[in-house]
Amino acid sequence: MDYVYGPGKNHLFVPGPVNIPDPVIRAMNRNNEDYRSPAIPAMTKVLLEDVKKIFKTTSGTPFLIPTTGTGAWESALTNTLSPGDRIVSFLIGQFSLLWIDQQQRLNFNVDVVESDWGQGANLDILASKLAEDTAHTIKAICIVHNETATGVTNNLAKVRKILDDYRHPALFLVDGVSSICALDFRMDEWGVDVALTGSQKALSLPTGMGIVCASPKALEASKTAKSLRVFFDWKDYLKFYQMGTYWPYTPSIQLLYGLRAALDLIFEEGLENVIARHTRLGKATRLAVEAWGLKNCTQKEEWFSDTVTAVLVPPYIDSSEIVRRSWKRYNLSLGLGLNKVAGKVFRIGHLGHMNELQLLGCLAGVEMALKDVGYPVKMGSGVGAASAYLQNNTPLIPSRI
Amino acid sequence: MDYVYGPGKNHLFVPGPVNIPDPVIRAMNRNNEDYRSPAIPAMTKVLLEDVKKIFKTTSGTPFLIPTTGTGAWESALTNTLSPGDRIVSFLIGQFSLLWIDQQQRLNFNVDVVESDWGQGANLDILASKLAEDTAHTIKAICIVHNETATGVTNNLAKVRKILDDYRHPALFLVDGVSSICALDFRMDEWGVDVALTGSQKALSLPTGMGIVCASPKALEASKTAKSLRVFFDWKDYLKFYQMGTYWPYTPSIQLLYGLRAALDLIFEEGLENVIARHTRLGKATRLAVEAWGLKNCTQKEEWFSDTVTAVLVPPYIDSSEIVRRSWKRYNLSLGLGLNKVAGKVFRIGHLGHMNELQLLGCLAGVEMALKDVGYPVKMGSGVGAASAYLQNNTPLIPSRI
Amino acid sequence: MDYVYGPGKNHLFVPGPVNIPDPVIRAMNRNNEDYRSPAIPAMTKVLLEDVKKIFKTTSGTPFLIPTTGTGAWESALTNTLSPGDRIVSFLIGQFSLLWIDQQQRLNFNVDVVESDWGQGANLDILASKLAEDTAHTIKAICIVHNETATGVTNNLAKVRKILDDYRHPALFLVDGVSSICALDFRMDEWGVDVALTGSQKALSLPTGMGIVCASPKALEASKTAKSLRVFFDWKDYLKFYQMGTYWPYTPSIQLLYGLRAALDLIFEEGLENVIARHTRLGKATRLAVEAWGLKNCTQKEEWFSDTVTAVLVPPYIDSSEIVRRSWKRYNLSLGLGLNKVAGKVFRIGHLGHMNELQLLGCLAGVEMALKDVGYPVKMGSGVGAASAYLQNNTPLIPSRI
Amino acid sequence: MDYVYGPGKNHLFVPGPVNIPDPVIRAMNRNNEDYRSPAIPAMTKVLLEDVKKIFKTTSGTPFLIPTTGTGAWESALTNTLSPGDRIVSFLIGQFSLLWIDQQQRLNFNVDVVESDWGQGANLDILASKLAEDTAHTIKAICIVHNETATGVTNNLAKVRKILDDYRHPALFLVDGVSSICALDFRMDEWGVDVALTGSQKALSLPTGMGIVCASPKALEASKTAKSLRVFFDWKDYLKFYQMGTYWPYTPSIQLLYGLRAALDLIFEEGLENVIARHTRLGKATRLAVEAWGLKNCTQKEEWFSDTVTAVLVPPYIDSSEIVRRSWKRYNLSLGLGLNKVAGKVFRIGHLGHMNELQLLGCLAGVEMALKDVGYPVKMGSGVGAASAYLQNNTPLIPSRI
Repeated sequence: MDYVYGPGKNHLFVPGPVNIPDPVIRAMNRNNEDYRSPAIPAMTKVLLEDVKKIFKTTSGTPFLIPTTGTGAWESALTNTLSPGDRIVSFLIGQFSLLWIDQQQRLNFNVDVVESDWGQGANLDILASKLAEDTAHTIKAICIVHNETATGVTNNLAKVRKILDDYRHPALFLVDGVSSICALDFRMDEWGVDVALTGSQKALSLPTGMGIVCASPKALEASKTAKSLRVFFDWKDYLKFYQMGTYWPYTPSIQLLYGLRAALDLIFEEGLENVIARHTRLGKATRLAVEAWGLKNCTQKEEWFSDTVTAVLVPPYIDSSEIVRRSWKRYNLSLGLGLNKVAGKVFRIGHLGHMNELQLLGCLAGVEMALKDVGYPVKMGSGVGAASAYLQNNTPLIPSRI
Repeated sequence: MDYVYGPGKNHLFVPGPVNIPDPVIRAMNRNNEDYRSPAIPAMTKVLLEDVKKIFKTTSGTPFLIPTTGTGAWESALTNTLSPGDRIVSFLIGQFSLLWIDQQQRLNFNVDVVESDWGQGANLDILASKLAEDTAHTIKAICIVHNETATGVTNNLAKVRKILDDYRHPALFLVDGVSSICALDFRMDEWGVDVALTGSQKALSLPTGMGIVCASPKALEASKTAKSLRVFFDWKDYLKFYQMGTYWPYTPSIQLLYGLRAALDLIFEEGLENVIARHTRLGKATRLAVEAWGLKNCTQKEEWFSDTVTAVLVPPYIDSSEIVRRSWKRYNLSLGLGLNKVAGKVFRIGHLGHMNELQLLGCLAGVEMALKDVGYPVKMGSGVGAASAYLQNNTPLIPSRI
Repeated sequence: MDYVYGPGKNHLFVPGPVNIPDPVIRAMNRNNEDYRSPAIPAMTKVLLEDVKKIFKTTSGTPFLIPTTGTGAWESALTNTLSPGDRIVSFLIGQFSLLWIDQQQRLNFNVDVVESDWGQGANLDILASKLAEDTAHTIKAICIVHNETATGVTNNLAKVRKILDDYRHPALFLVDGVSSICALDFRMDEWGVDVALTGSQKALSLPTGMGIVCASPKALEASKTAKSLRVFFDWKDYLKFYQMGTYWPYTPSIQLLYGLRAALDLIFEEGLENVIARHTRLGKATRLAVEAWGLKNCTQKEEWFSDTVTAVLVPPYIDSSEIVRRSWKRYNLSLGLGLNKVAGKVFRIGHLGHMNELQLLGCLAGVEMALKDVGYPVKMGSGVGAASAYLQNNTPLIPSRI
Repeated sequence: MDYVYGPGKNHLFVPGPVNIPDPVIRAMNRNNEDYRSPAIPAMTKVLLEDVKKIFKTTSGTPFLIPTTGTGAWESALTNTLSPGDRIVSFLIGQFSLLWIDQQQRLNFNVDVVESDWGQGANLDILASKLAEDTAHTIKAICIVHNETATGVTNNLAKVRKILDDYRHPALFLVDGVSSICALDFRMDEWGVDVALTGSQKALSLPTGMGIVCASPKALEASKTAKSLRVFFDWKDYLKFYQMGTYWPYTPSIQLLYGLRAALDLIFEEGLENVIARHTRLGKATRLAVEAWGLKNCTQKEEWFSDTVTAVLVPPYIDSSEIVRRSWKRYNLSLGLGLNKVAGKVFRIGHLGHMNELQLLGCLAGVEMALKDVGYPVKMGSGVGAASAYLQNNTPLIPSRI
């Protein structure tokens, strides 16, 4: 009945796609509907308003595009830039690398600012580039808020400050794929021009919806941007927004109802509580890693990610074997190390709809898998460190007080 | 819980998105999974083989792209053509119009061959264009197999014959969105170079998967095509096919399991039986239209579509009112007339997972809605004409003999 | 994947189990929960209050028993009566027959009042029995409100009037299995002492919940009733009601959430509108039967049932063949004739969550099946008669006005 | 949408109802069907054969009754015994107590053999009773295989041996509610006459199906047993078995499909592997309890249960507070102490579809809750003890080798 069966639940701890809440699975358990009936536009109208809240924007315009994060990137770039435009982009891991690859293939002129994998974006170089660029040849700054490959969170407030310091008009484009709805993200306050995420990340939906939010400045830029685009063109969306029918082409009915349910859950918990939960789970994970005597791939505390932890293993161990073992023996799905850090790190995703005991079960599984591959871990050490912290810091479930 | 509630089932007869079979809804009722585990590639490998069967190709290469039909169009064009390339494209209704709009916005040089809405593609003009084009400046022929706006099916075998007659090397690109899996379609036999459909049409899935199949000649063309593309680039897919991991970016786990279930149902019924069922339901619908004393928007029998029927209403009636009325009073979803035929036609979609009694219920609803808006229909006339035909022509359900 | 597959939806028109609304299927699509947590009792408390509304009682006490209608019968009898007790019971079809069989096997002393199958309960005999019974030896009157086998609805108000006329204290026990939530039923006004239904009937849930509602007089009787019982004993329920934990043994979590959703839908539509919809669909069905030139098994209009129509076929036709044919060829599930009327009638269930077009699809299927078995029906005649009526009488869907 | 919401998954560790596997939830996610169509009897026929395998019987006759465990008890008793019959019954905890209460209220003459709660059935007394009963006045021995309230497993092989030693013909009736499909159970080998379980226990389905299996000797007894019964009467089932329609009254369609899926999963894993998994999880749980410095309510190792562990807390702690706390803060559902052991024990259910990491997550939660209520537990101690054992003893998932 299912492709590969194992007794008990699958423990899903890759940093995406993440666990879908049961009420969301229920909400999507439905037949198709006519998206041109009055019901779907009415629903969409409210969704578009509500989705702005997770970006913390009131002035932004959101687009719910039937695509993935890769498509959302392309939407951000092609709607705001013209071929040949100079952009500054930070390479700090596999996902920023892929975005840069896209930027280059779309014929932008990319200043790649590279850091060691495990470090955050080098913002000093940004400052110096902006300082030099008095002619404003730099059209956009592209940065991932949270690099999923290395568990590094960049400081976006600081990016804005640098832009402001140099009064530089470059567009500020942010990949918030593994941050938005999980980490503190403030589109308006930080003057982000395009922010984007994917449905299968902290929103905890299936893959298939790229959510892109554009500032008024980005919308203005889209009027003159010369990159060719049709499927990703905001113009078509805006035309249908104005007509009140909202969809230039067919959306997934199921994802719309799923998004409705996902937002309801987030608002019921409270976005700040959702973020605090991620902070708590991130901290607990790092305490476990420390207790195991292992190192975080992220080199400084200021970059520690609360949505994904990349764990460095000793040189005598192949981190891929930990991932394989976890899956084969414990029905635990962990993230592989990618590219430069392949074999060197494994990743624990702790984002989306997740609670303390789910994470502790995962950590117990990691301990067993570490032992399986010959790492001399003390059983219970990581779980104990994490649970000692969580026992002190977990609030009561509000609906149950 | 639901956006707009009505007692009883919604009767979904728009020509897409269509009714999802219950076993498919069940198969998709699931949590996310790690798409990098061994299970998903193993499943994908088989899916790619099986999906070729619905295109009737053995030499084609399929791509399951997380997008809609509009994106599938863009994938077909940008992977095979370069900006400025000359193409011949047939305008016969709203969806061919939109594809042509896309072709033009992507900077192709389009020879638009227009017909009256209600007629098929003018293949005589194609012949004369090919005859003149001894220098082979025409790089591609773009044609919709079935124009969903007018219920017109084009003769693809004849297109191939004309190409062959003139030994013209132009690529043959086909929009099979409302035909593949419902109408007779033969990719290899007809020498189609790119064929595409969307999951929410005859495959009877939710929206979100654009299925594009490329011939070896199209794959060859993709190596030199200069249109900028990343998200839609076949190259990335082919690279991951070769690695055996299959996905350059995250697919929808739910749609993969849904596709598996949908194909299982189609193969269990037999693709030829599925097509025969569409032929039967199409014929029954047209008999009802005739019995009501109404005209088919499609002007000649050779173009009659077995997946959608566009019904012309008398000038004193606004067809949109029939659609509104059906929805408001009978929980029946019909298709509106679009663009040039807005207000003049309404459309009955009879594609996908549907049987005789579902269609007859719809036809009974149309009769009531016609009466509601003042058309002097004899109650039962259309249903009677359709059921007289169906009673003679419906086979026993094979699994129940 | 499914036991017996057919293309398109199954058309379910047996008089139970009936079609489940999609929102109810969604609500039940869930894991188990601890029924001793605070959540389930809180939910149950509200459910018990709400369920009284469908019985139109304020003084009654409902029991949600994990059983079927047969179990609900047993609960009604064993909680209120002692072995040897004299009861009057009406035999008018297969389901009243089965209840009487139960009454006799539980050692009650049953005065069986038999009518022709197709007639209602003979209330004149009731009157004469009560008149004679000045010693009040008759402890209970047992009657089915709607006999599902013959499509006969009994006049309960008249039963109450006769009881009152003779100031007879007998308990008034009503099987409302195929009536409650579909036909006009007034527990308090009619002085019904025990009323019962099953979840899979007009409530449109899966089978598995027997809903029994007891008047204060019935509760009083239960204190002295000597029939042995444990699983069905109201006393255990009442004890847990008082403790606020509600469940003497494990309920189905899924059915509780399903009942919640089902009641929400009924209240949203309005119970009176639900009943009016059944009246409308019942009338439409009878008009179709008449148009086909067939007779209703129900002999007089006063007994016509709005939840099920039993159709008599000419002697040269085996009604079972119509049912078989409908299922094998049209994926239509009709009810067989049972016992005395086996082979003579087939039954159309038109109760529960159903709308006009669903019924018209069914009627079109019946026409085709009639033709299949050699009955000279004019195609479209029944559907036309029904739709002419429905087109005049169907209100707009309130949420869509 | 949901009654009480908490972020992340609910961790369900009550000893029933237990976690439902996702494939089973999917299988039950469906509309009703006509249970008189050819499909349901065909499915039932196979189910009845397959269900015998989980009882390890070839000669038994199973009944799938729409009821709970309490109803299954009543079915076992009333079909085999007559009022006044003498039976021997063992009181060792709350569930054996409730069964004895039922036996007494059904007017059987019960020799109650009581043990301390935490001990197994006193089989020495059984031996002496049988020795004395040369006249064979004892008609049945009633015993729970696994007392869910105290986590005590009785030795059924020994019961059979004693019966054989005294050549006593008493019926051997076994409550296998929290054992069958999880613990080693051998109906034929142990000469059990009636064995029963409930769907919501180790079968991991929703509540609503009482599964009762009768030996030929029990069937024979049912022919003369004088207890009044209709709903629970095996005779009606046997009559419909013979007719090939199988159901004397309406079954839950959803539970039938669910049972099919549940059995498929069990057979795919292998019943012996399922039992070994329970042995492993039971052992791991007890190691955690020991590491916490707490005592098992079960007084001797021979009675340790592999499906539920009742943990004794120190006198200064109220065990109910641990359960409340777990639910309120960690979304963890544990079992309360019942009746005599209320406040003194809390219970961890580890039966049904569950794997190692699920259990370890639960154990981590218990540690935090213990700390919450003031017990000086060393964080990670129990999880570490359990995972050290599990890391050594968990096999690879067969489908993933």
